[in-house]
Amino acid sequence: MTEVNEARKIILDNCTTTAVDEMPLLSATGFVLAEPVYSAIDTPPFDQSAMDGFAFSFDKWDKKSALKVVGEERAGDDSGILVKQQEAVRIFTGAPLPHGADTVVMQEKVSDADGGILIEDAAIAKGSNVRPKASQTKMHRIALPAGHYLSPASIAFLAGIGTEKVKVYSHPKISIIVTGSELTPPGTPLEKGKIYESNSFGLAAALHRLHIQPAAILTTRDDREEIREAIQSQLDSDIILLSAGISVGDYDFVAGALEDCGVKKIFHKVKQKPGKPLYFGRYRNSLVFGLPGNPASALTCFYEYVQDAILCSCKKETGRKIVLPLLNDYTKRKGLTYFLKGKIANGGVEILKHQESYLMNSFAEADCLVELEEGKENFQKGEPVKVRMIV
Amino acid sequence: MTEVNEARKIILDNCTTTAVDEMPLLSATGFVLAEPVYSAIDTPPFDQSAMDGFAFSFDKWDKKSALKVVGEERAGDDSGILVKQQEAVRIFTGAPLPHGADTVVMQEKVSDADGGILIEDAAIAKGSNVRPKASQTKMHRIALPAGHYLSPASIAFLAGIGTEKVKVYSHPKISIIVTGSELTPPGTPLEKGKIYESNSFGLAAALHRLHIQPAAILTTRDDREEIREAIQSQLDSDIILLSAGISVGDYDFVAGALEDCGVKKIFHKVKQKPGKPLYFGRYRNSLVFGLPGNPASALTCFYEYVQDAILCSCKKETGRKIVLPLLNDYTKRKGLTYFLKGKIANGGVEILKHQESYLMNSFAEADCLVELEEGKENFQKGEPVKVRMIV
Repeated sequence: MTEVNEARKIILDNCTTTAVDEMPLLSATGFVLAEPVYSAIDTPPFDQSAMDGFAFSFDKWDKKSALKVVGEERAGDDSGILVKQQEAVRIFTGAPLPHGADTVVMQEKVSDADGGILIEDAAIAKGSNVRPKASQTKMHRIALPAGHYLSPASIAFLAGIGTEKVKVYSHPKISIIVTGSELTPPGTPLEKGKIYESNSFGLAAALHRLHIQPAAILTTRDDREEIREAIQSQLDSDIILLSAGISVGDYDFVAGALEDCGVKKIFHKVKQKPGKPLYFGRYRNSLVFGLPGNPASALTCFYEYVQDAILCSCKKETGRKIVLPLLNDYTKRKGLTYFLKGKIANGGVEILKHQESYLMNSFAEADCLVELEEGKENFQKGEPVKVRMIV
Repeated sequence: MTEVNEARKIILDNCTTTAVDEMPLLSATGFVLAEPVYSAIDTPPFDQSAMDGFAFSFDKWDKKSALKVVGEERAGDDSGILVKQQEAVRIFTGAPLPHGADTVVMQEKVSDADGGILIEDAAIAKGSNVRPKASQTKMHRIALPAGHYLSPASIAFLAGIGTEKVKVYSHPKISIIVTGSELTPPGTPLEKGKIYESNSFGLAAALHRLHIQPAAILTTRDDREEIREAIQSQLDSDIILLSAGISVGDYDFVAGALEDCGVKKIFHKVKQKPGKPLYFGRYRNSLVFGLPGNPASALTCFYEYVQDAILCSCKKETGRKIVLPLLNDYTKRKGLTYFLKGKIANGGVEILKHQESYLMNSFAEADCLVELEEGKENFQKGEPVKVRMIV
């Protein structure tokens, strides 16, 4: 059996980066830049007023006498005014400084005098209240490097420097194959011995959180040939998720079907609870995950392994966990890492009751998974533990 | 001027809940239930084996002699077998227990004997390895209450109990109106005195993070009538976001245009940096935010105010912040709450350099906003501060 951290490392080591896609700036929110973005312009594109006030030449200013107001400059304007000695121009936030001016005084810091304005601002200095041309970006220089994550602020920044399209790592193409002769689609009548299929719902919903739509969702019976055909049809996906049929029972055909397709097994079984039967394999650059059939186990393995594989493939940050103190004691078996349904409250994390892997009602209450390390048995209230947010 | 916490309270007090929408289960990921969901069935729908093993009747079992294996029960099967005294049925995970059986022994804990099996499991008890019928949900009982947030685990849970559609609070309809005579769309040539429009990009990207598409994005010049027309056309939206034109300059027409449309001002100006000019008003049940024109200020006000208004309107959790120790000292002005671009690292948060509100390049590096309280001036390394994640 593979250890949890070893399994994580193996998965990341096997990740290959997705194709580069050029997309309109706005569609690229949440993607990672595959190439640097160069600024189309200097920003600000001109010396720009940061305030509503008056623009003037600091060096030519005679502090004791009034400045004559010779014109007005608004945002979006290009008045062409030249400001001479002892003259000022009424100016508004965002407007370009007129020729001859280098300093802006705020409108609150002037008084009317001799048909002009008198500056009453002891702290004013040359360049005050001016955003200098190119102080944010310089034309044709790198504005954001390759590998940068495009947050909303990044998108606004790139729009402001004139970016129309960007090249990013595309999201991986992901297929879901749920196996099991007992599976019935929700909304249809349930025959005796059958249950409603829920793993494709949980997995697709977890992908939705990452802004990814699955490329395909297939359901098969417990039949090696049927499973093989389903896998075969999805081998062009970057990531293939199978659920159930991965233990060692007589009707667990997934491992065999994967072998039939030429998928190379990398590990099978991890020292963890839930999700011990987890299978990981590879076909060329496609990663294949055989997830357990229990809905809670399948979703736990998604969060703890598949999610990082997805993030890694499109160059996003992986392994994001926070550390919080436990709010209750917990005793587990030694030799397995536990992933437990938890809820964050009062600066700590509570391990919820009802952790059995077939129970989804407690998972529905959880907002995080608590990781309890393999080698330890007793965990006490107040102890710091690793927590993964799942909502 | 309104205080930050007062402004937040006023906004939440003015929120009205969005319409209820019935949608297919999978589309409802990330929404909040407007009505309870009742379980369509008992789950498990039958006494179900939790293991691959052998099912038998515990009370009729003679521990010293072998059990005769009389058949097989797979997941999805309904064999109709009756298990009699000293008989067992080969059973697989997920399969219904055959009539007469109430206990399952794991396949690893039996040995072959006398053409049957001998149980070698000291810990076995009546009902071992069986998931009792209806132990998760009972038919026609509430499975999840109104107000429940539909995480991926909730979606899987609801699929498993046969749910096809759910009634949830719909996302609010949101319009964006950016104002400014200097604004030019990215990708077109920039005339002198103009800048590229970026606020609609930042706001739409921030909405995308919440899985919301804006209903409309409009751009106007600094012209009261043009702005009025734009607002008028969007008054059927739940939330209207305007940017720029909200200060008290001669060309700040937004407040006037809002008045022309009958929007009632609730507050204007907040004791904060950046974003002091923030305007909040209401027209019937529509909330109107006048955001500052500086891209960093506009986006900060979105995260600190608009986001919670959106979440509140569709009954999601608001006010989510974490508390982390500062990684550097910081001195600010007393009397204003500061929202600073930050980056989380090593269990703490660093306040980034270059906080000027026209600079978006440092915002693009940030993964959080650090809130520094109004009444305090000096913040020291190690001090706990409130942090809002923005990526």
